[in-house]
Amino acid sequence: MANFKGHALPGSFFLIIGLWWSVKYPLKYFHQKGKKMQLSHHHQRLEIIEAVIRILFSVIGILAEQFVPDGPHLHLHDGSHWVKLMNWQHATMYLFFAVSGVADVLTYLVTHVPLGVDRLLMAVAVFTEGFLFYYHVHHRPPLDQHVHMLLLFALFAGSGCLFVEVMVRDNFVLELFRTSLLILQGTWFWQIGFVLFPPFGTPEWDQKDEGNLMFITMCFCWHYLGALCIVATNYSLVYCLLTRMKKRGEEVIGIQKLTSDHTYQTALLSNSDEE
Amino acid sequence: MANFKGHALPGSFFLIIGLWWSVKYPLKYFHQKGKKMQLSHHHQRLEIIEAVIRILFSVIGILAEQFVPDGPHLHLHDGSHWVKLMNWQHATMYLFFAVSGVADVLTYLVTHVPLGVDRLLMAVAVFTEGFLFYYHVHHRPPLDQHVHMLLLFALFAGSGCLFVEVMVRDNFVLELFRTSLLILQGTWFWQIGFVLFPPFGTPEWDQKDEGNLMFITMCFCWHYLGALCIVATNYSLVYCLLTRMKKRGEEVIGIQKLTSDHTYQTALLSNSDEE
Amino acid sequence: MANFKGHALPGSFFLIIGLWWSVKYPLKYFHQKGKKMQLSHHHQRLEIIEAVIRILFSVIGILAEQFVPDGPHLHLHDGSHWVKLMNWQHATMYLFFAVSGVADVLTYLVTHVPLGVDRLLMAVAVFTEGFLFYYHVHHRPPLDQHVHMLLLFALFAGSGCLFVEVMVRDNFVLELFRTSLLILQGTWFWQIGFVLFPPFGTPEWDQKDEGNLMFITMCFCWHYLGALCIVATNYSLVYCLLTRMKKRGEEVIGIQKLTSDHTYQTALLSNSDEE
Amino acid sequence: MANFKGHALPGSFFLIIGLWWSVKYPLKYFHQKGKKMQLSHHHQRLEIIEAVIRILFSVIGILAEQFVPDGPHLHLHDGSHWVKLMNWQHATMYLFFAVSGVADVLTYLVTHVPLGVDRLLMAVAVFTEGFLFYYHVHHRPPLDQHVHMLLLFALFAGSGCLFVEVMVRDNFVLELFRTSLLILQGTWFWQIGFVLFPPFGTPEWDQKDEGNLMFITMCFCWHYLGALCIVATNYSLVYCLLTRMKKRGEEVIGIQKLTSDHTYQTALLSNSDEE
Repeated sequence: MANFKGHALPGSFFLIIGLWWSVKYPLKYFHQKGKKMQLSHHHQRLEIIEAVIRILFSVIGILAEQFVPDGPHLHLHDGSHWVKLMNWQHATMYLFFAVSGVADVLTYLVTHVPLGVDRLLMAVAVFTEGFLFYYHVHHRPPLDQHVHMLLLFALFAGSGCLFVEVMVRDNFVLELFRTSLLILQGTWFWQIGFVLFPPFGTPEWDQKDEGNLMFITMCFCWHYLGALCIVATNYSLVYCLLTRMKKRGEEVIGIQKLTSDHTYQTALLSNSDEE
Repeated sequence: MANFKGHALPGSFFLIIGLWWSVKYPLKYFHQKGKKMQLSHHHQRLEIIEAVIRILFSVIGILAEQFVPDGPHLHLHDGSHWVKLMNWQHATMYLFFAVSGVADVLTYLVTHVPLGVDRLLMAVAVFTEGFLFYYHVHHRPPLDQHVHMLLLFALFAGSGCLFVEVMVRDNFVLELFRTSLLILQGTWFWQIGFVLFPPFGTPEWDQKDEGNLMFITMCFCWHYLGALCIVATNYSLVYCLLTRMKKRGEEVIGIQKLTSDHTYQTALLSNSDEE
Repeated sequence: MANFKGHALPGSFFLIIGLWWSVKYPLKYFHQKGKKMQLSHHHQRLEIIEAVIRILFSVIGILAEQFVPDGPHLHLHDGSHWVKLMNWQHATMYLFFAVSGVADVLTYLVTHVPLGVDRLLMAVAVFTEGFLFYYHVHHRPPLDQHVHMLLLFALFAGSGCLFVEVMVRDNFVLELFRTSLLILQGTWFWQIGFVLFPPFGTPEWDQKDEGNLMFITMCFCWHYLGALCIVATNYSLVYCLLTRMKKRGEEVIGIQKLTSDHTYQTALLSNSDEE
Repeated sequence: MANFKGHALPGSFFLIIGLWWSVKYPLKYFHQKGKKMQLSHHHQRLEIIEAVIRILFSVIGILAEQFVPDGPHLHLHDGSHWVKLMNWQHATMYLFFAVSGVADVLTYLVTHVPLGVDRLLMAVAVFTEGFLFYYHVHHRPPLDQHVHMLLLFALFAGSGCLFVEVMVRDNFVLELFRTSLLILQGTWFWQIGFVLFPPFGTPEWDQKDEGNLMFITMCFCWHYLGALCIVATNYSLVYCLLTRMKKRGEEVIGIQKLTSDHTYQTALLSNSDEE
């Protein structure tokens, strides 16, 4: 969908998953540190819920691309021309993410599926997105081409990171890196929307101005800085929350202890009375 | 051989090996899980048979490329021009696969050949195929070039995967990934045949239409989805088969046990009779 | 800052850090060899001081880029055009190095920050520098473009090395490699300054002469040889210094031993006198 | 030196080292298999001799490039133009190989030099060769450019392999791969000489003929097949030699045993006689 909404929608999807990851992975990290690497039952359920939500998002994306008023409505060829290939390509991207989501669900539900298949299929999904975008933007004005090309850096870096994770699973630094790239992708989709389809009646960007190209390149770096800040903030918040909960938990245990000590002493006293 | 058969033949070769791998690797995986990583005698014999078949396929390919009616018949230069370099290049590709097959046979037959040489030579063979294709398609119409370039993604990804396997041997996820890429390659060869040399009198594809290029890019992704589905299906079939066989096996053992218990009890009884 | 100082300033920053690293890493290496991998308190303090200095350098760089007489003074857009994007891009590069410095400080000060985040952010900072330079030099004369492109080799090699270090931490050879690349970057910035803005009234370089391009390519290799020599020299100096200190330390201990032996013997003697 | 000898000389250097490696690494491999990974004194001496020979080769190369009749004789700039940059670039390549040789000598002689530095510097030397070649061949006829570009595949693959060996040292398969690439480089230099400067009065190759380009690409693959065959043959020869020596060794020991048994028995007999 070549309009503002068509970029805001996937941008929001990626942003929501990215923000969730920036909370989930620190949670998992601190949890593991305390409890020595056991995948708790709760954690597993969370992963499945996340994967189901990702599948839902993908299905919404596919349906939106197919059944918007100017969409192809599942027609691929009208006898003489291909119908709305743009929308078909976007739907294909969503389809790969749906498949990756299904792989995640299966990995956690079915015990005999080998670990790493989920990462591999996510890497394939992200790579496919980049692959289709790469062949997507030929013959467009320079700025349009450039904002999409910048996206490829985030996509191929993310795909590469996920491929490494097939071999090196549960590396926290790689997970944080991937999270930051996902958030970058989300905010960058919004940026593309604002640049190519200015929503609030703001003037259009000159598509051939060298200055615009230079600014947008730098802007991409700022977006990544922003993504890093979001990850760092959420990481710290999770840490603070967990330490506070732990303290309170210890206090409660402390009070219980005191109480039980008191009871014990009372018991002792009463015993000694009895003696 | 620049015709439909010249693409259907190698496509079928790759597809057959790919389908076999999608059964072999899950079998090996579940077998190892049960028996703790011992390369059984049967498995070794299977590998050798597979390698011999691959060598046969390659030799058939070389002979076909050389001795088809319009082939070079082993003439390389006729004094003034190179003779049928296309066929020579294809024959070279098959030759590398034959060498890779020989390396596989040697690795399993001769004990002093270091493990990893088979993977390395397969990686070299796949890389060489991509390398020759890359320099193969200059000066052709855009669509022809594009369908061959897409193949390179499958080839270089497969080669990269095999290079990693030199170091990380017997990683099941990598083996599945490689299998899916091989199946993709097989089906894509057929697709190239259909696109460049429509077999059933269907109209020719416009080689310069932008829409065709966009569709074929997306089509490549669909082929990969199909390859993933085939791998997943065969994986599940193997799993179901093995669990059913195991159950039946246990029942048989159970019956045998019962029988032997019965015999034992009978023996006991008879003993007690004797006492 | 497109002048000689604008290249000499960052060149000096990189050179100073590079020279310091070429002393620090050998020191750490020989220290660890003796004491079996314990991160001493002193070492940790040194790392923090280094990171703070790097942050300082970056802040100086940002301020210089923004507030030189012909700088943007924090104005990004004057209503119709982007203001001094060159300076903004350079400031962005420094900003990423500042962030990397902050990550280093946090990794050593705050115990719950996972190791590897510092390396990852340094890799990102170096990559961003290369990324911005890459899109920075289009539409410039060939020689200008070429000297900047050569820099990219050092930058992307360094970034790749740092990414590997996220996984393989404390590999001494990788640290030396990174150090040599950093020194190369430092000296090359000076070289760029000399080539593009000859400082001492020397004649300007012909920007389109093929010979100049060939010489500068070779010159880049010589710079790297120089960087390797510097690293090797500092490595040897550290080694000699440490062995000499160790010997002297042993002599001191030897004398103390002698003295204490003497005291002991005297004590013995006096004891025996008393008996 | 842009003539036949200028390609035959380095080709021979690389070929000699390559052939030596194809004997050395199998020797080392079988030796280690028997004796469990101890770097014998002999092996170390061999490595040093090899490195010294490599340094000698490099110095010969440098001197040849500088002091051939039409060489630069150490003049770099004659006031208005760069002098014979081609020769200077080749001399620089040799210089890097000399440095790599020195690093090898130091790694084996000086105990405190960290392992891996030798591999790293060899990787850098090979990369530099490729790097200089890459910028070397612009503005030349297509065939000239192509034969040099093909060389880059061997060089960058070799450099990548060596970089991996910094981390994964003493992997026999990687060593064989590197050896095959070195032999390929050696034979390809000869091939370049034959193509660009036909030595025996054979007609010149048409530098723009598409057929020549296609043939030479395939020819490169055949060279690699040849290199693989050489490595395989030498590997087998070493294996046969060692097994034969071992058998003879065992026979000798067997005879000695027999003899000593005989002596023992004689001694016994004579003892029994005495009794």
